[in-house]
Amino acid sequence: MQDTPISSYAEAGVDLDLAQRAKAGLSSAVASTATPLTLDAFGAFGGVIRLPADIPDPAIVASIDGVGTKLHLAIEMDRAADAGRDLVNHCLNDVAVQNARPIAFLDYVAADRLDPEVLTSLVQGMASACRDAGVSIVGGETALMPDTYAPGRYDAVGAVIGVASAAHLPDPTTVSVGDVCIGLPSSGPHTNGYSLARELLTVHDRETPIGDQTIEDALLAPHRSYLAEFSAAFAVPGTRVAAHITGGGIAENLERVLPHSVTALIDTTSWPQPPIFEAIADGLDVSPAEMFRVFNMGVGAILVASPDAAARLLDELPHALRVGTMAARRQSPVELTPTP
Amino acid sequence: MQDTPISSYAEAGVDLDLAQRAKAGLSSAVASTATPLTLDAFGAFGGVIRLPADIPDPAIVASIDGVGTKLHLAIEMDRAADAGRDLVNHCLNDVAVQNARPIAFLDYVAADRLDPEVLTSLVQGMASACRDAGVSIVGGETALMPDTYAPGRYDAVGAVIGVASAAHLPDPTTVSVGDVCIGLPSSGPHTNGYSLARELLTVHDRETPIGDQTIEDALLAPHRSYLAEFSAAFAVPGTRVAAHITGGGIAENLERVLPHSVTALIDTTSWPQPPIFEAIADGLDVSPAEMFRVFNMGVGAILVASPDAAARLLDELPHALRVGTMAARRQSPVELTPTP
Repeated sequence: MQDTPISSYAEAGVDLDLAQRAKAGLSSAVASTATPLTLDAFGAFGGVIRLPADIPDPAIVASIDGVGTKLHLAIEMDRAADAGRDLVNHCLNDVAVQNARPIAFLDYVAADRLDPEVLTSLVQGMASACRDAGVSIVGGETALMPDTYAPGRYDAVGAVIGVASAAHLPDPTTVSVGDVCIGLPSSGPHTNGYSLARELLTVHDRETPIGDQTIEDALLAPHRSYLAEFSAAFAVPGTRVAAHITGGGIAENLERVLPHSVTALIDTTSWPQPPIFEAIADGLDVSPAEMFRVFNMGVGAILVASPDAAARLLDELPHALRVGTMAARRQSPVELTPTP
Repeated sequence: MQDTPISSYAEAGVDLDLAQRAKAGLSSAVASTATPLTLDAFGAFGGVIRLPADIPDPAIVASIDGVGTKLHLAIEMDRAADAGRDLVNHCLNDVAVQNARPIAFLDYVAADRLDPEVLTSLVQGMASACRDAGVSIVGGETALMPDTYAPGRYDAVGAVIGVASAAHLPDPTTVSVGDVCIGLPSSGPHTNGYSLARELLTVHDRETPIGDQTIEDALLAPHRSYLAEFSAAFAVPGTRVAAHITGGGIAENLERVLPHSVTALIDTTSWPQPPIFEAIADGLDVSPAEMFRVFNMGVGAILVASPDAAARLLDELPHALRVGTMAARRQSPVELTPTP
């Protein structure tokens, strides 16, 4: 509350011209993501995109997500484009996990004040990841919200739209005792747990070596897209369901795609943990249970498949590892062994 | 930066259990929006929805938007549900303006710390507006972002997915000299200009009468949905395009749907301005030009139609008013007369 009234929107902290200038730098990045499905929308209020012709009985699969506080780290390190890629890849995984083909992406970026260079870099990163996935950016919003955001802070939100064949959606009821869990390696914490992970920079310099990376590179390693792996896996008969591992860790995310009749027994010694997780646990004195609750611990996605399908997937997907099996339901839907 | 490392996610400011508790209260609100198109998605990563069977050659129309700082005002006044309705209605207008039928909505809510009651009220408001429009909430994300949001502040983002017939998308090239602009009344500032409008409470008490409302009620009047009006209008042959009036005012928003060959001549004396706008201009000493640049000034949407179609629309749409006509292109795509 202030004593003197203010008389223009700029004085109120929102500069429409600045917003327009910043947005203008984004149009070429957005245009670079056009696909044959994108319809010219003439500056439309809503973006318009056609459906792929080769998906029978199409259903829409959609998700909305943020990139969390990893964004701050990326901006502090002058790597906003990496955060843009993170956001897109996280969203792509949300629909690819449902055997959907992502076709469109929309973004929302808000801050107390927008730095046009940061915004442009962020959207260029999004556009790069969208081009890699054949996804068209069809909409976006940039909001200046004085009083809402802490100084210098941003939030970035992405929404992705995919198309799946309604008859070929993954069906958790097909998961059976004896099915195999296959893990796909993560590149690090992806975009989860950064309120905690960022604290590592309070106890170590950013150039500190972690494995063959610096802490900075390990913390900012891009969130992997599993679009290609999920797409290849769902083409193999006997692939049941897939989960990608975000906030809540392996237990909470795998549970989302399991029927009540089974428990996934995950052998946590069956994959190599990227050294960044040990550094976080040691440097910040975080318990193993908390680590597994917050982070993916090296497994970014899990596919569940029949034993025959699993053999094919382990053969065909590079770096895929057998990480567990399905047993009859025990106390919890997912049991980690040994208990962290 | 702090000297002592922290050892759990809760100490880092993110409490996953709180997040889960808060989310649990949302499931009944979200479930209440299910439509015959909603597919059971079993806690899926992406929401799944079928396409309506009666829209030939379907194309997806999508938009993402925030509700801006009106959200703060609504939360301060203990009216978060109103902000939820605002968010949905703003998004619905973004796709309805393209002659699309909205079918699905996704929300993202982020804050430094989440008050479960505020979050529940917000999502209940969204669900209420979605039910009114026959739209299914198919996804949502709730983010705790310590350090990003100012204390007590929230942001809420919505994404809407609609389906249009590709052959029946509004086509700006059909707009012709002599076409008529029809205005639909707004309920007030809708969700734009609130960084400025909120300042009115620094010079007036919230109970101050404004017309037949209090300032509080005038500022928090829900963003109108024009879904029914747009849908009825596009069923009338000769309806060309529609714009809804958000940030940037009449001039910037109407320009988005005009071809380069015309200028819309808008007679700003042709509709009654809600008294809240005069109160903002007077109370905060804002120039008329700035008012028209930031606010809708009483016209929440404009339809452009042939003279014959316009006669039908003025007859059929309650409260619709003739607000202007199309002339051959002059200096600007939209001219307000008299110049504010």
